[in-house]
Amino acid sequence: MTADTPTIDYPPTERTRIKRQHERALYDRKTVHEILDAGLLCHVGYVIDGQPYVTPTCYWRQGERVYWHGSSASRMLRRQAQGGVPVCFTVSLLDGLVFARSGYASSINYRTVMAFGEAEQVTDEAEILATLEFFQERLTPGRWAELRPVTDQELKATTVMSLELKEVAAKVRPGPHDDAEDDYGLPVWAGVVPIRYEIGAPEDDPRLAPGIAQPDYLGDVSVG
Amino acid sequence: MTADTPTIDYPPTERTRIKRQHERALYDRKTVHEILDAGLLCHVGYVIDGQPYVTPTCYWRQGERVYWHGSSASRMLRRQAQGGVPVCFTVSLLDGLVFARSGYASSINYRTVMAFGEAEQVTDEAEILATLEFFQERLTPGRWAELRPVTDQELKATTVMSLELKEVAAKVRPGPHDDAEDDYGLPVWAGVVPIRYEIGAPEDDPRLAPGIAQPDYLGDVSVG
Repeated sequence: MTADTPTIDYPPTERTRIKRQHERALYDRKTVHEILDAGLLCHVGYVIDGQPYVTPTCYWRQGERVYWHGSSASRMLRRQAQGGVPVCFTVSLLDGLVFARSGYASSINYRTVMAFGEAEQVTDEAEILATLEFFQERLTPGRWAELRPVTDQELKATTVMSLELKEVAAKVRPGPHDDAEDDYGLPVWAGVVPIRYEIGAPEDDPRLAPGIAQPDYLGDVSVG
Repeated sequence: MTADTPTIDYPPTERTRIKRQHERALYDRKTVHEILDAGLLCHVGYVIDGQPYVTPTCYWRQGERVYWHGSSASRMLRRQAQGGVPVCFTVSLLDGLVFARSGYASSINYRTVMAFGEAEQVTDEAEILATLEFFQERLTPGRWAELRPVTDQELKATTVMSLELKEVAAKVRPGPHDDAEDDYGLPVWAGVVPIRYEIGAPEDDPRLAPGIAQPDYLGDVSVG
């Protein structure tokens, strides 16, 4: 995921330079996009009256923006849609548990993207429909055309937010641990336990219309 | 996970009452504990100069507190350890994709816990060691005794934070979708695609001491 001389497409800032031990901070578009395109669930942080809120929600990336959506009645989205609201957008993918010979050197493997900026509401109806279609098609290519068209009422009830990828960094903790040299001889098991999402067999809705088979695109579902 | 008359152990507040469509908010200790004990990764939200930060980190629950830890050099932990810092602690477990007959009614299944309060630094060395042991043992019962003791230097380099479970709610979105009644006849596949974490086969460290077998407790690892 990195080269010897990493590319920097997103200039690091004080906020995106923050990293933790054994973590690599990467600022190239390819790594940031790969992580964002692998995930489905993000955590959006925002502030109301000095109190931080962290809300999990689905997201998708289109070009140099990430998008998330929800009910227009949602307090989170009403707050964010006020404009000029700083957010922290975080995606975290857990890849494994790292067992070292000491608790201190033990860790987890993960990929994360953190983006800062002001969230913007998408207000143009054609743009909302286009990005919702993009989201559905990314997850399940071919499904959007099967669904009945979005109604005006549904469109009114849906708020779509977006954040430009400008102040953004990927943090990656790959590979095995980093024991202190003296600890390698200890009689303790060390290694990595890999973790990934398993997509289970689709379960038909009990009220499925007769003759509806499970579509092939279900095999494309991937969330992390 | 719920009864007809749900128990309320944590009194709802303005902040914990927020929920989204088709979501159930639950305030009983059993549900909150079950979700917290299933997960490994949380997202901690905090504010620096009006800017929200959302940091993924490992956590564990002990009694009516959640704990997380990291490097004493970490900007996040130094900020939180100042005292009186409001945080939002969020755990989100993805359980499935819910395909309805319209995009609007489609959703995800998840379990989430959101807790608000002021994070407190654990400063007592015996308490730090005890809770680190608790964390390790929860994940892999029996491993703590195998590891070499924590050194003084490691203890100094580790900051442990905790948050009391007081203002907390679980939000759960279970089961299938909720199509508009008119949509049930549409010729579109609907149902649920279950998602869960798969724990892969442990990979031995290349420098494992001779004769060290994979311990049984690796079979207990569970992260969501």
